[in-house]
Amino acid sequence: MNKDFRKQLKNILENASFDTADLTDEMWSYFEQAFTHKTYVNEHKGTKSYQYLEFLGDAVLQFLVSNAIFWTFPNDNEGHATALRSAIVDRENLGRLANELKLVDCVRASKGAYNNGKTIKADSDLFESFVGAIYCVYGLGAVESFIEKVLLVDLENFSNSSLKDPKSRFQELVQTSGKNDIFYENTALGNGLFESRVMIDKCVYGIGIGKTKKEAEKAAATEALKKYQQ
Amino acid sequence: MNKDFRKQLKNILENASFDTADLTDEMWSYFEQAFTHKTYVNEHKGTKSYQYLEFLGDAVLQFLVSNAIFWTFPNDNEGHATALRSAIVDRENLGRLANELKLVDCVRASKGAYNNGKTIKADSDLFESFVGAIYCVYGLGAVESFIEKVLLVDLENFSNSSLKDPKSRFQELVQTSGKNDIFYENTALGNGLFESRVMIDKCVYGIGIGKTKKEAEKAAATEALKKYQQ
Repeated sequence: MNKDFRKQLKNILENASFDTADLTDEMWSYFEQAFTHKTYVNEHKGTKSYQYLEFLGDAVLQFLVSNAIFWTFPNDNEGHATALRSAIVDRENLGRLANELKLVDCVRASKGAYNNGKTIKADSDLFESFVGAIYCVYGLGAVESFIEKVLLVDLENFSNSSLKDPKSRFQELVQTSGKNDIFYENTALGNGLFESRVMIDKCVYGIGIGKTKKEAEKAAATEALKKYQQ
Repeated sequence: MNKDFRKQLKNILENASFDTADLTDEMWSYFEQAFTHKTYVNEHKGTKSYQYLEFLGDAVLQFLVSNAIFWTFPNDNEGHATALRSAIVDRENLGRLANELKLVDCVRASKGAYNNGKTIKADSDLFESFVGAIYCVYGLGAVESFIEKVLLVDLENFSNSSLKDPKSRFQELVQTSGKNDIFYENTALGNGLFESRVMIDKCVYGIGIGKTKKEAEKAAATEALKKYQQ
């Protein structure tokens, strides 16, 4: 591995309180992979992109966050717990952390492709692949301690305002980007279902169906949120 | 706890090779909860339904299955791995196991409500809540051994036929229920996106949008599969 690249990774890990003294080359290779964007792989044969580690890291995160919620709030219910988990393992939240922990500065990508095409999704994916590598190298307990420090701080008081419904969250997102006038066009589909289209300036941003108009609007907003954040 | 109920639970656990000799009342209460349907809770104050354990069990399952895939197929990619995981942690697959392990015979529900309103989803939820209780009482390693025996048998040879795309799977599902003539109605939305509606006999079963017609059809079929399986 390139010496400068390993030095950068070492800094990241040590800043996050991981001991790197005993890491073998095989262990380093997980972190190397975790910071390798697919555009780099296209130009450098024999390298692997972070996507498979992201698959693993996402599952580790979902599990550990669910576990923390379950034991912190033993009398919660699955609806609220699911909403709380979504608000924590949220693209914007993880993307913010990838920036705060300076993970984004370390990414290997083809000629700045990562920074040029930079999205919240890419940053959030990077956080997940980093978690995947920590899991492979240091184990589950180490990931648990790490996310308790960076992701689950103040879980007890985690603001309920983060648990807003998708319609409100889409509205906020649209407003911050200077647009306005969200319109939901609802149609009865004739089979007991409703269709809702969420539109801005005559453009459809999401379509949802549901058993009630409210459910359809919620589904449409959820889809719009996904597309908008990509 | 009712003596007969505990005896039933004991049988289930011992058939699945769990040692029940040292279980405390608190530990039994997790299994009691795991087999309690919400219709029972409505009529019996002080009882809890299995839904919160299902939330936890689902996350445990997703994590352990992802982990098994990652280490069994170190050179896989995230797309195939995600499809493989979905095929394993699949409602029909888990529902089948809930029946094979006779979990469904143990459920406490209001006056047969569980069996009358019996769906694959309810059976699959029950399997997840059972996994949640095993995790709470016996720990993560015990769940791992358990699912290696019942869910991950022959993972190496897991048939690729389970990994069909959503359109094929929807077609098969519809055919087994005696219907036919699935039709995809595609429309260009004018903002670079396509909308697809999957229809049977003029009824809309799913709507999807995507950047290509193919992507939109796939999204529509995925939604239709979800609705059809509920």
